[in-house]
Amino acid sequence: MSYDLIIIGGGPAGVTAGIYAARQKLNTLLIAKDFGGQLIRKAVKIENYPGFEKISGQELIERFEKHLRRQEIDIEMDTIRKVEKKGRNFLVFTESKKKFASRTIIVASGADPRPLEVPGEKKFIGRGVSYCTVCDGVMFKNKTVAVVGGGNSGFEAAIFMASYAKKIYILEHSPKVSADEINQKRVKEIKEIKVITNAALKKIQGEKFVNSIVYQARKSKKLNTLKVEGVFVEIGSQPATSFVRGLVDFNERDEIKVDFETFQTKTPGLFAAGDLNVGKFKQIVTACGEGAKAALAAYDYIQNLKLIK
Amino acid sequence: MSYDLIIIGGGPAGVTAGIYAARQKLNTLLIAKDFGGQLIRKAVKIENYPGFEKISGQELIERFEKHLRRQEIDIEMDTIRKVEKKGRNFLVFTESKKKFASRTIIVASGADPRPLEVPGEKKFIGRGVSYCTVCDGVMFKNKTVAVVGGGNSGFEAAIFMASYAKKIYILEHSPKVSADEINQKRVKEIKEIKVITNAALKKIQGEKFVNSIVYQARKSKKLNTLKVEGVFVEIGSQPATSFVRGLVDFNERDEIKVDFETFQTKTPGLFAAGDLNVGKFKQIVTACGEGAKAALAAYDYIQNLKLIK
Repeated sequence: MSYDLIIIGGGPAGVTAGIYAARQKLNTLLIAKDFGGQLIRKAVKIENYPGFEKISGQELIERFEKHLRRQEIDIEMDTIRKVEKKGRNFLVFTESKKKFASRTIIVASGADPRPLEVPGEKKFIGRGVSYCTVCDGVMFKNKTVAVVGGGNSGFEAAIFMASYAKKIYILEHSPKVSADEINQKRVKEIKEIKVITNAALKKIQGEKFVNSIVYQARKSKKLNTLKVEGVFVEIGSQPATSFVRGLVDFNERDEIKVDFETFQTKTPGLFAAGDLNVGKFKQIVTACGEGAKAALAAYDYIQNLKLIK
Repeated sequence: MSYDLIIIGGGPAGVTAGIYAARQKLNTLLIAKDFGGQLIRKAVKIENYPGFEKISGQELIERFEKHLRRQEIDIEMDTIRKVEKKGRNFLVFTESKKKFASRTIIVASGADPRPLEVPGEKKFIGRGVSYCTVCDGVMFKNKTVAVVGGGNSGFEAAIFMASYAKKIYILEHSPKVSADEINQKRVKEIKEIKVITNAALKKIQGEKFVNSIVYQARKSKKLNTLKVEGVFVEIGSQPATSFVRGLVDFNERDEIKVDFETFQTKTPGLFAAGDLNVGKFKQIVTACGEGAKAALAAYDYIQNLKLIK
């Protein structure tokens, strides 16, 4: 069985690509390990997806999934092991040992949380170290926690945790946080949150569970210990793209290089939409827009194949 | 009074840019002649904006406008006469003789319907000739009409008119229609619609109102007359951008040339998002994505200005 298009990923980019491809009557398969992508880890309500003044990540995911499932499209819940090019087709191999062929591929598998890579991190995963406030935040009621990372996701995680924890430290490595102005303003208004800039996290300590972290104040070089029972890691993400290595070019952050009009990679017929490409701006609505463009470009690509056949 | 950003246009691109700019705490003014842009003329329900399986253009416009008005943003209902660059600022002049200054501009004023430019067209505007089925369709109950244009908007106009008119001709100039496969399939299922390809419209005739059109069958060169009481023009759109002439480069269709990552034009600080730029794919969700990217790029541009100040 060969498809016109296989979409890899069930986040905003993948779902939108699926809606568009199905409406173009492309014979399409979408493979995802889950629906929602990074929306699953969204700590505060979404206020910047046009049409919804305020919506939870979970509700938006449900709406996206329902919208997708209304289309004529095959869906497999699975993880990708490898994508290969063979003649004019791509072959997709999954963890559950299935194999699919397709004329075109849209990679929209998003990104995973980037680990800190400090001593203690791995040891305490699930025992104080977490990459998802929405999933684990409730366990830290009236406790003191640290959020590592002063970008939007770090600030949003801290704002979310303010409804549970009694004290929240945000640790930012640079001299300046990079969160949106609106998130900075909100954090200033929450007295439970303290932002520490120029802070290099050195280790996570504890016995059975986390009980403290050690960071270096980068100016004075002094080591400081903070008593915390939870550490939320929010230092960005790394693209989930190892399965297309060889078919695409990456930048230094392992993001896939694309043409920004069609989102095609260096391999004709292979597209990359959403957070995993080199685009500067990674938002829900920008991922959706890129998914739509990639699907329409895949349709054009297939029409051209028919012409030269 | 000088703004950080002036957004020109109230369609999907402009509204999304406004939401993003306000959340970045940019001091922002949005100027539009109305809200919705081309959504106003949307003939069938929208089924490809992710999150809404089926929504009318009017309802989506209302949701967009409400979402925008929740932000801290100034809004002026006005039409633009001219945009000029003066030193580090842009000056915006409006039809109602107001003048505003801003550090950056996002042009998102979309596109207007492209006229046929055949004899009779201008004469019969409002008397049988229309550019908007949603606005005027109801007047053609049980009548015979022609839709000129075999793209998506033409097919959607014909589908919409099938609930009013007794007979609908779609005239397409090329040998092949360009509507989406899903629209082609729907039209095939509606017996009231007849598609005529290779048809070059020559004139629109009538007395007080339209009573017929003449087209040339491009293969046989034969002139044919069709008795119709309405003509809906759906041959695409032309960008509404004359007010930035001199500051931007255009392609042969008067679309503004941009960098596809930031949507900046050749003039630093001047961005163009949505249907009026040279991008191939013009969809509601792609316009939204472009509006978000342009707003974030405008924010970055202003931050850089501050650094070099």
